[in-house]
Amino acid sequence: MPLRPVDLTEALAGFDDHWNPRVAAELNGQHVRLAKLLGEFTWHRHEREDELFLVLRGRLEMHVRDPEERVVPLEEGQLLVVPAGTEHKPVAPEECSVLLFEPAATLNTGNVRDARTIDTPERLA
Amino acid sequence: MPLRPVDLTEALAGFDDHWNPRVAAELNGQHVRLAKLLGEFTWHRHEREDELFLVLRGRLEMHVRDPEERVVPLEEGQLLVVPAGTEHKPVAPEECSVLLFEPAATLNTGNVRDARTIDTPERLA
Repeated sequence: MPLRPVDLTEALAGFDDHWNPRVAAELNGQHVRLAKLLGEFTWHRHEREDELFLVLRGRLEMHVRDPEERVVPLEEGQLLVVPAGTEHKPVAPEECSVLLFEPAATLNTGNVRDARTIDTPERLA
Repeated sequence: MPLRPVDLTEALAGFDDHWNPRVAAELNGQHVRLAKLLGEFTWHRHEREDELFLVLRGRLEMHVRDPEERVVPLEEGQLLVVPAGTEHKPVAPEECSVLLFEPAATLNTGNVRDARTIDTPERLA
């Protein structure tokens, strides 16, 4: 990892697709990923990995089953840790940008495999 | 860890002291810490831990020896990973607020012990 800054605004300007996290940094076996979200994602859980969502722009509704189904609204500048094993479904009524912090091995769709599964997230240039 | 959001602005409004990181979240053995910085910190390195700095407000100058001494300026919305073993000294000419990602065991002053060493960072309420 070169010792140079990553500018979050520039990095987010570098891609337009949704639900396709880019690796912005790697440290201690963890990834910092950036993603743009729009619409509803897939219900899933990560068996072993806690996952952090920080809203950089817009707002996100995190649907969770812990175990009752409920919605945790996340505004810009708010972060949420979804613990391992907790079923969740991110929903972005309008486009939002998020920073994710999670183990490098974390699969975006967790225990589910569907059209949006990304086995190896791209790195930012 | 309760499944509720952390608001970064509110969290930062909750303390005023410098060089005293607060634990905002814990996941996968890692800490998300928030800190306010002003002035020069201590030159130090972390033998085993990479450390991420994300500037939330203001600007930071990261002095590094890799191995030549140089300064990496960090503006608001920019992040930098300082790799394990790299000597560094954060300098904040004016107060800035940062988010840190690092292993929960990371000591703020790394291989150095001085008046600013904090063995157990406080958790946010």
